[in-house]
Amino acid sequence: MADRYIPFTKVLRDLPASTPFVGPEALERRTGRAFRARLGANESCFGVSPKAAAAMREVADQVWKYGDSESFDLRRALAAKHGIAEEQISVGAGVDEILGNVVRLVVEPGTTVVTSNGAYPTFNYHVEGFGGRLHMVPYKDGYEDLDALLAAVRETGAPLVYMSNPDNPMGSWHDAATINDFVRALPAGTLLVLDEAYIEFAPQAAAPAMDPDDPQVVRMRTFSKVHGLAGTRIGYAIGHRDLVTGLDKIRNHFGVTLVAQVGALASLNDPDFLQGVIDQVAEGRRDYEKLARRLGFRALPSATNFVAIDVGGAERARFLLNALQDEGVFVRVPPVAPLNRHVRVSVGTPRERAIFAEALEKVAADMPAETEDG
Amino acid sequence: MADRYIPFTKVLRDLPASTPFVGPEALERRTGRAFRARLGANESCFGVSPKAAAAMREVADQVWKYGDSESFDLRRALAAKHGIAEEQISVGAGVDEILGNVVRLVVEPGTTVVTSNGAYPTFNYHVEGFGGRLHMVPYKDGYEDLDALLAAVRETGAPLVYMSNPDNPMGSWHDAATINDFVRALPAGTLLVLDEAYIEFAPQAAAPAMDPDDPQVVRMRTFSKVHGLAGTRIGYAIGHRDLVTGLDKIRNHFGVTLVAQVGALASLNDPDFLQGVIDQVAEGRRDYEKLARRLGFRALPSATNFVAIDVGGAERARFLLNALQDEGVFVRVPPVAPLNRHVRVSVGTPRERAIFAEALEKVAADMPAETEDG
Repeated sequence: MADRYIPFTKVLRDLPASTPFVGPEALERRTGRAFRARLGANESCFGVSPKAAAAMREVADQVWKYGDSESFDLRRALAAKHGIAEEQISVGAGVDEILGNVVRLVVEPGTTVVTSNGAYPTFNYHVEGFGGRLHMVPYKDGYEDLDALLAAVRETGAPLVYMSNPDNPMGSWHDAATINDFVRALPAGTLLVLDEAYIEFAPQAAAPAMDPDDPQVVRMRTFSKVHGLAGTRIGYAIGHRDLVTGLDKIRNHFGVTLVAQVGALASLNDPDFLQGVIDQVAEGRRDYEKLARRLGFRALPSATNFVAIDVGGAERARFLLNALQDEGVFVRVPPVAPLNRHVRVSVGTPRERAIFAEALEKVAADMPAETEDG
Repeated sequence: MADRYIPFTKVLRDLPASTPFVGPEALERRTGRAFRARLGANESCFGVSPKAAAAMREVADQVWKYGDSESFDLRRALAAKHGIAEEQISVGAGVDEILGNVVRLVVEPGTTVVTSNGAYPTFNYHVEGFGGRLHMVPYKDGYEDLDALLAAVRETGAPLVYMSNPDNPMGSWHDAATINDFVRALPAGTLLVLDEAYIEFAPQAAAPAMDPDDPQVVRMRTFSKVHGLAGTRIGYAIGHRDLVTGLDKIRNHFGVTLVAQVGALASLNDPDFLQGVIDQVAEGRRDYEKLARRLGFRALPSATNFVAIDVGGAERARFLLNALQDEGVFVRVPPVAPLNRHVRVSVGTPRERAIFAEALEKVAADMPAETEDG
């Protein structure tokens, strides 16, 4: 079989093997120990709505059926919630999947795409996976630098630009007026992916009004964060009808599980649970802020369910990441400057926050001295 | 906003809106009535292993966690089952998703892909979605015509050819020796997608031995059929390590749900349930055969959990499809000749088979006369 080979495309041959994230289970297998506090995967530590869990349990023996390929009931509920048309909503198996499909709509080999250096790696993964070229602008003071993003779009003529609001991994946010100014300033024919995975945790002023008639904005929403349904894989895009039609041309029509559709719908109908999560997250953010101050660090203001703690340098952050892992605490450190001087930690339950606080205090005592370039 | 537009790629602009299948829920919404017997979506009417259902219920409140991005436990179990290495298995959110990714590995705009005319529409959907060109050869006497497929591959130099064994939608099968001859005859650099979604229902002689060291074959297996887990979306590919690495470069690493992983593993560990499904399906196939004979039709021998019934002509088949739908019975008729003279019906439970038999007998009485070209 020496002459037999796999006829990969050029894009695939040129593509290095990469994984956007190493998951917590994979880390546990590598280290041979289980995490006591799972605070690094941007999950919701406050669990699932009991109504959603009950609805999912109820369909456990019904999953011989494919899920509805049109996610009809869920789209109808989402349309009502957002005051838009069902034809302006595309449901997918999580934002990761939808991001890949949106990239595929506009990126061919060689297409330039603009994003911030250190923003969502899975978006970058999709861009590179379709042969696109990333043009990355640096963060500025913990914020995505909208002026720099816009300048990069103009300079490169990129048809696609990514922004998350609130921001992952920093937790910062821009207000609706700023976002709207950015959108209006986009050149014709540049599509903005506005990733709003964490919007439910943000001040109301962070979310622009819905305008799905604008063909140049597609907004990403998810059930993985405040709804706590990450492990069922369901999210949605809000955009122009033509964009939804474009997604319909390429999406996996039967890809959203029956379990996810049922769980998401039940969760949407449990606003008390969701408000409870939001309130507990707000409380946890204040806890982390106090903890950071006590240890001489600085917690960045966050509009998400995680907090980026500036520990004073990249070397320190890396040290703390590893030391916390040895203590059974899973957090993340963004891999690029100037973000890499922060430890990003999900808001855990009070118990998980106590484990994190105790572990951080312990390992911080052995921390290396701060260096200039950290 | 008149000058604002979505910067679709040329492939997307040229791509017509299409959906591989209209799902049963969508049909119910169109007609305004629920199906009494859901026998058209290639689902398993014998449900889910009670062990799998219990395992899925147990994680219903754990789904705030993403599923393991490496599906480690499941891959280990599958590797043991098939006697191959974990690195030769790629788990995905159903065969539909994996098929799309395999197509993406080798198809760029203009690439020719060979398949049978009337074979799995979702494969074709992916090929066209990546700008590939389908070269389709006709079925022969209810079988995929391997000689014609091979001739087409040689003639076109296609890097990709699709075959299902057992066949969907006809239920026919080739034996392992025939498949192996086909594989050996492939030109170097042509990848065969061997879709074995229904292999558990087939005679043992239909499945070639595992040889994942051959870089030119990728086999598709699913939990949607005998395992009855269609609505959780989970399947896997078996192939060369380099092919699995290729999939790892582009797949959605966190795309397989926690629920699906847990359910699939529990189902794998319930061989008695699976054997029960296989036995009941065999019994149901015999029922359909008798029913067909009684009504003057011919049921094709089937190695799957559905049966294609030759009703004598395309016009008749279309009539029966619609008349059965009016009776609340959901079946399918393949859209292209010479397959379109068959009604394809899933093996239902005894109750569903009785509903189908009664409805078919009733509507067959009003059937149009057979025409020559039907």
